[in-house]
Amino acid sequence: MKTDLTALAKRYVPALDWGRSYNRDTFQNDMIAAVIVTIMLIPQSLAYALLAGLPPEAGLYASILPIILYAIFGTSRALAVGPVAVVSLMTAAAVGQVAEQGTAGYAIAALTLAVISGGILLAMGLLKLGFLANFLSHPVIAGFITASGILIAASQFKHILGIDAHGHTLPQVLYTLNENMNDANPITIAIGVGATLFLFWVRKGLKPLLIKSGVKPKLADVAQKAGPVAAVVVTTLAVFAFGLADRGVAIVGEVPQSLPPLTMPSFSPELIGALFIPALLISVIGFVESISVAQTLAAKKRQRIDPDQELIGLGAANLGAGFTGGYPVTGGFARSVVNFDAGAETPAAGAFTAVGLAIAALALTPLVFFLPKATLAATIIVAVLSLVDFSILKTSWGYSKADFAAVTATILLTLGLGVETGVSAGVILSILLHLYKTSKPHVAEVGLVPGTQHFRNIHRHAVDTDPAVLTIRIDESLYFPNARFLEDYVLDRISDDKEIRHVVLMCSAVNVIDFSALEALEALNLRLKDNDIALHMSEVKGPVMDRLEKSHFLHDLTGRVFLSQFDAWVALTADRTPKAAE
Amino acid sequence: MKTDLTALAKRYVPALDWGRSYNRDTFQNDMIAAVIVTIMLIPQSLAYALLAGLPPEAGLYASILPIILYAIFGTSRALAVGPVAVVSLMTAAAVGQVAEQGTAGYAIAALTLAVISGGILLAMGLLKLGFLANFLSHPVIAGFITASGILIAASQFKHILGIDAHGHTLPQVLYTLNENMNDANPITIAIGVGATLFLFWVRKGLKPLLIKSGVKPKLADVAQKAGPVAAVVVTTLAVFAFGLADRGVAIVGEVPQSLPPLTMPSFSPELIGALFIPALLISVIGFVESISVAQTLAAKKRQRIDPDQELIGLGAANLGAGFTGGYPVTGGFARSVVNFDAGAETPAAGAFTAVGLAIAALALTPLVFFLPKATLAATIIVAVLSLVDFSILKTSWGYSKADFAAVTATILLTLGLGVETGVSAGVILSILLHLYKTSKPHVAEVGLVPGTQHFRNIHRHAVDTDPAVLTIRIDESLYFPNARFLEDYVLDRISDDKEIRHVVLMCSAVNVIDFSALEALEALNLRLKDNDIALHMSEVKGPVMDRLEKSHFLHDLTGRVFLSQFDAWVALTADRTPKAAE
Repeated sequence: MKTDLTALAKRYVPALDWGRSYNRDTFQNDMIAAVIVTIMLIPQSLAYALLAGLPPEAGLYASILPIILYAIFGTSRALAVGPVAVVSLMTAAAVGQVAEQGTAGYAIAALTLAVISGGILLAMGLLKLGFLANFLSHPVIAGFITASGILIAASQFKHILGIDAHGHTLPQVLYTLNENMNDANPITIAIGVGATLFLFWVRKGLKPLLIKSGVKPKLADVAQKAGPVAAVVVTTLAVFAFGLADRGVAIVGEVPQSLPPLTMPSFSPELIGALFIPALLISVIGFVESISVAQTLAAKKRQRIDPDQELIGLGAANLGAGFTGGYPVTGGFARSVVNFDAGAETPAAGAFTAVGLAIAALALTPLVFFLPKATLAATIIVAVLSLVDFSILKTSWGYSKADFAAVTATILLTLGLGVETGVSAGVILSILLHLYKTSKPHVAEVGLVPGTQHFRNIHRHAVDTDPAVLTIRIDESLYFPNARFLEDYVLDRISDDKEIRHVVLMCSAVNVIDFSALEALEALNLRLKDNDIALHMSEVKGPVMDRLEKSHFLHDLTGRVFLSQFDAWVALTADRTPKAAE
Repeated sequence: MKTDLTALAKRYVPALDWGRSYNRDTFQNDMIAAVIVTIMLIPQSLAYALLAGLPPEAGLYASILPIILYAIFGTSRALAVGPVAVVSLMTAAAVGQVAEQGTAGYAIAALTLAVISGGILLAMGLLKLGFLANFLSHPVIAGFITASGILIAASQFKHILGIDAHGHTLPQVLYTLNENMNDANPITIAIGVGATLFLFWVRKGLKPLLIKSGVKPKLADVAQKAGPVAAVVVTTLAVFAFGLADRGVAIVGEVPQSLPPLTMPSFSPELIGALFIPALLISVIGFVESISVAQTLAAKKRQRIDPDQELIGLGAANLGAGFTGGYPVTGGFARSVVNFDAGAETPAAGAFTAVGLAIAALALTPLVFFLPKATLAATIIVAVLSLVDFSILKTSWGYSKADFAAVTATILLTLGLGVETGVSAGVILSILLHLYKTSKPHVAEVGLVPGTQHFRNIHRHAVDTDPAVLTIRIDESLYFPNARFLEDYVLDRISDDKEIRHVVLMCSAVNVIDFSALEALEALNLRLKDNDIALHMSEVKGPVMDRLEKSHFLHDLTGRVFLSQFDAWVALTADRTPKAAE
């Protein structure tokens, strides 16, 4: 019993594994990474809370307990969990549908969203449903991230301009921005645009300049990462020194000095019902973002990520966020890369970051009283514009029109109808395009490549054929969307060509024959029999053959099943010679 | 221009084709078939109208113009179009949601449903979307038809018992039947049960008996088909003679003596919106039923059916039904088989049937005044119970658990939640199960079958392998649901086995590599490169290769692309020998 419990604990609590080999070196490396990440996370957490429509402290709270829980249950050594841009945007969209921003109901709905999302992730992990994330194809994810980046940037313009705007689609945001343009505050614009330009310059120009000036690359890197902190410090001091808050510059204001509070989400079935689908989308999108980052970083150190355990880690993190004043979280790209580059070796680095942020929440919040919202908006805009990448349109166009269609639809629908519609439509479109393609499969007539035992398309290669033997390679599994296709194809083909006595279905590319296709094959066999044509099969794969053997089909088949197409060729062409001699 | 019009007319009006070779023999055969079908259709049309919740004449009207329009635009020589059981049930379910049975609104909604359905079918035909019907897999159709048969039979018990009942799910129908059981009318029960038993006996026992008594098989067949007419005549006379209508037996009552009237469906956007999804389901289900019958009958005479033109024919028929007092129609199984067996040679037989039914509508309707509804219910019950076939559960269980799950879900959901939910859930489940299966594809390590150039699974066959060469045959197209799977599989495999220097992906079963999978292959190539392992591909199909050539992948690939797996084997095992000698 005890061994069982230990094994179970080891399986679901990866911390027990890496914790045993923890030593002083690892501690030092983790500590350095934690300090760097903490400095970077303070403004970022405040900014993302703003994006989600929540008070700034929610961003800090969402980074503390979730990081610790992920450190215990997650499998990635470098992933940093907390609020991220896309999930913050999705939170704003979801919660905005059930509550007014700024009300207590809004904050409670955000907690509830985190708890539902945590429950979904946990359930998916325990049920080993990690594969579901695969239904988000690469083009859909790329299109969604790009469109989200644009939406997020647009939603922050109001803070840069110091005006009011709202909406969860690009037209709504642009329309309300335009309507309130007259209220724009020049000082806010100066701060916002200044901070944005500064941060862009820090991102692109600072590091090369420092290196040129003889600063070590590593240090130049740290300086670059500290850019947002510098912008925060300078603009806060400016607002404080010149009393800009009284001249219309929106500031963060009072943030409670407190450790994350214990909070209760709502368990109203109505609210849970309304938030379930958004929570599901947030869970899946968050999981996909997180697992992509985790796998990229793990591969660099030859570590492996267990997707199902990752679901459990993220589920625990979200439950933690929901009960400590946060909102939905996931593994973020920027923060994880910083953590990894800063030398984090184990999830303990995350735990140290949590301690740093807890100190910040307890002691440093008065310092951000005069922090202008425009500066936070600038950090968001600069961060998310790096997500915007239209090159996917070009590469997918060159490779596959179906993938291009999925990208384009996802981008347009996300911008035009919002994040939930956009990503759902992308997934559905990907599936429908796939089904459409498989419903009209590629079928090739093949012949023998001379001097080999290999068969290729008669239209692409110089091959030997026999007029009495029609060999068809079906380049698709046979299943319900294409079940009738093969029957139609073969019957059309034999009505054109009266010499055919044998039809061989070369099944090297047939991975499944489902029940509908089995019925179609039985019908084909019967109709060929009526025409005195034998139906044969070759290169039927093991799993397909196992299943066919359970049916009556092989018993009724007028021809034979050959191990290889070459065997079929030898037998059927030999077979023909005596017949021709009759 | 004139030639263009002629070609266009010939393409869309198949009647122009068979009409030219029409002669006296064909006329005679068509005429005989028409008489037999007309006699069979009169009670059937009245009964199905009852099932749809419409006045009896609607069934006659739905059989007149639609048959003629199908004769002009359809491609099947023997298909008989008109009201059928399943579509009548679906009509009752759809129209019952928007109007009260017996009201004028109900009849108008039924007309509107027919027009929307006609529009959908026509549009699908012109856009060549006939393949969409393929998404109804065989198990889903079989399950749906069986469950519908049970639902229909259950819904008719009220007429047999002479009580009130309603509902579109089995529990609803059984519950309301049970509630009103005390109102049962003994005379109605006697007529209903008597007619049901008589019709069962006619179906099973009459023909053998007649043949035994020396009647010619053909004539015995006609006698059997006339069974429902006999039941109608006898019970009508009984009601008339003994004044049973005054003793609680529900009768058909007055039916207007009229040709099909010109009727206007409603064009209210609200009604159209409410009926669109049901109309879509009715169209697809109706089309699938119709095309299956048409193809079965056409195959017997080596004729071909054009699915897209069939959509146009059925679309025209439904539009006709909507403007002449009918309701949605399709090609029926029973009536088409009777038509075919009776010797119908061209769609003109259908036109003659229409004339027969028009005469009946004009002259014979007073004769059915005293026809008991219980008799009509008996004809429906006996007809639909032949649709109920649970053997699909057994055969699909033996062949494929996924198909079994689809059948079971379709049956249970159709019975429990109604026809629309049932068939929608069946389709969605079929698609999801397929995606689930392809997301975890079968992957086989293969080796050379000695003495051949053929490669098979190392676990199923005695084959030659080389420790430095890992050859993996992927038994599935590579696309987004399984894009990450292969990468994980190969990386796990090489971490177990340090001798591997070459990985060959044998792509004989890979029919598509989509953009997501391409990204995964690029990642795999890079990671193998980091481990000094070359990635090769073999047996890449033409269409897949064409697409890969448009990307950077082949340029970055560390290994080669071999035409055949045997070439790869020869090159890589030869390659190894000098290396080992270093």
